[in-house]
Amino acid sequence: MRWAEGFIAVDWGTTNRRAYLLDSTGQCVDEFEDGKGALSVPKGEFPAAAAEIRTRLGDLPMLLAGMAGSNRGWVDAPYLPCPCGIDGLVQNLVWAGEREAIVPGLSYIGDGRADVMRGEEVQLLGAIAADYIAADALVCHPGTHNKWVFVERGEITRFRTVMTGELFNLLKNHSIIGDRLQGEVSVGPAFERGVIHGLNHTDLTSELFAIRARWLLGVTEPEASASYASGLLIGSDVRIGLANHDEAVVMGRPELTRLFAAAIALAGGTASELDGEECFLAGISEIAKRIK
Amino acid sequence: MRWAEGFIAVDWGTTNRRAYLLDSTGQCVDEFEDGKGALSVPKGEFPAAAAEIRTRLGDLPMLLAGMAGSNRGWVDAPYLPCPCGIDGLVQNLVWAGEREAIVPGLSYIGDGRADVMRGEEVQLLGAIAADYIAADALVCHPGTHNKWVFVERGEITRFRTVMTGELFNLLKNHSIIGDRLQGEVSVGPAFERGVIHGLNHTDLTSELFAIRARWLLGVTEPEASASYASGLLIGSDVRIGLANHDEAVVMGRPELTRLFAAAIALAGGTASELDGEECFLAGISEIAKRIK
Repeated sequence: MRWAEGFIAVDWGTTNRRAYLLDSTGQCVDEFEDGKGALSVPKGEFPAAAAEIRTRLGDLPMLLAGMAGSNRGWVDAPYLPCPCGIDGLVQNLVWAGEREAIVPGLSYIGDGRADVMRGEEVQLLGAIAADYIAADALVCHPGTHNKWVFVERGEITRFRTVMTGELFNLLKNHSIIGDRLQGEVSVGPAFERGVIHGLNHTDLTSELFAIRARWLLGVTEPEASASYASGLLIGSDVRIGLANHDEAVVMGRPELTRLFAAAIALAGGTASELDGEECFLAGISEIAKRIK
Repeated sequence: MRWAEGFIAVDWGTTNRRAYLLDSTGQCVDEFEDGKGALSVPKGEFPAAAAEIRTRLGDLPMLLAGMAGSNRGWVDAPYLPCPCGIDGLVQNLVWAGEREAIVPGLSYIGDGRADVMRGEEVQLLGAIAADYIAADALVCHPGTHNKWVFVERGEITRFRTVMTGELFNLLKNHSIIGDRLQGEVSVGPAFERGVIHGLNHTDLTSELFAIRARWLLGVTEPEASASYASGLLIGSDVRIGLANHDEAVVMGRPELTRLFAAAIALAGGTASELDGEECFLAGISEIAKRIK
């Protein structure tokens, strides 16, 4: 451990950032979250944005994951190809300064597809290092861009992104059915009807419009539309990602893992839930420990 | 024919309106289009918006189709249930004034779905009245909300909407892949690859993200992304709408019918194209002729 006195871990997202102070034993002793996501930091102003984190959490070394390493971030940390384990991340840290290391993201090219992730890899490999999940597992990581990740012998071997979260937000904020999607999404009959439709049909782009038609024709109660649409998108997502598997770990923010776990159960699968923040702290601590 | 001296026909869309002056023989002798779509006209100001049309085209009776009859329009013209032929439209005209008649839209409830259309029915039933299409046909009508319409014995019996146009615009204007979708869409290798993927796979919400990943990883030429994404959405649309049919009439704006006709051909089907504006004029003239 190079940083015996402790360090600051930053999970720098597109629209938010979360910073943690980890003490010499790896325990998180302070933290904060704010809206200074990578997109809101002009190129060249990441050193100042990092200095601001130090004024709040202390003058310590920093380990950064997520969009800080993107082409819109502090320093471009190239994607590492799969398969990749935690040592791959450690060996390919990109140093933005003497005390600022950035964790690279991962890429996958195969099955006629291409895919990228940035940020989730720390949570995933952290969960393995902390024995929260087995060395072989299928992990579902909901968010703006949901990831279905295959872990084999402790490494990430392949993964697939589904744009579920972003599509729901696009529909909610900008589409003709948007005014019907403003209600709260919760697991219940409407959500379950949506999931079942998404699991069993492949007509998503048509069924989304049916939400509007049912409302105009008085066929359904409008207040259920947000849950139905969310269920429809998540059901389609699980159909694509779970495929013929029957077990998955759902890792992320509890309000999202709950929805995906319910959908996986409706698909006949077994899901266990893990808090993404705990996995992030486990992963970033493990990376720090291994820095020579 | 009640309006022997001629009349004004208006195709009032959500974001645009198009007005035509038809003379006593049913010929279009003047027209204009502007951006005063139904959404930009405040409730209560449709009489003024219609008066403005008369100052440009003459003090004549008006026959209006499209969003003028929606719940955000001039007068709410309730949806007529399928099956419906041109006489159904004539018998259910809603009179906004003594010389202003609004054509109702259509609804369909069946196959576990609900659906609505407003505006396309005039084009469809006009094409039948003018013998542009047979009395039995499958018609694809691309637009913001693409319609697949079954015509049987001269009536519209059922239809299905696919949100292809709106989804492409949402992705182009607001999504993380938006900057990759700014190029022109044209039929060519990238469009065809997209169509073939959409026809043969049911992972649309995943494949859309792959556009971004391929670009980040340098796997594809970025300038082809708009055509690929359009092809992907249209291929998915044709998979849903053409289903096991092998022939369709594609009716609408030529720049859109071209794309859908190419996709239907790639699906192994036969497509003929019809100009939607000609069909609208045929339909609205036929309705005017039948008004008692």
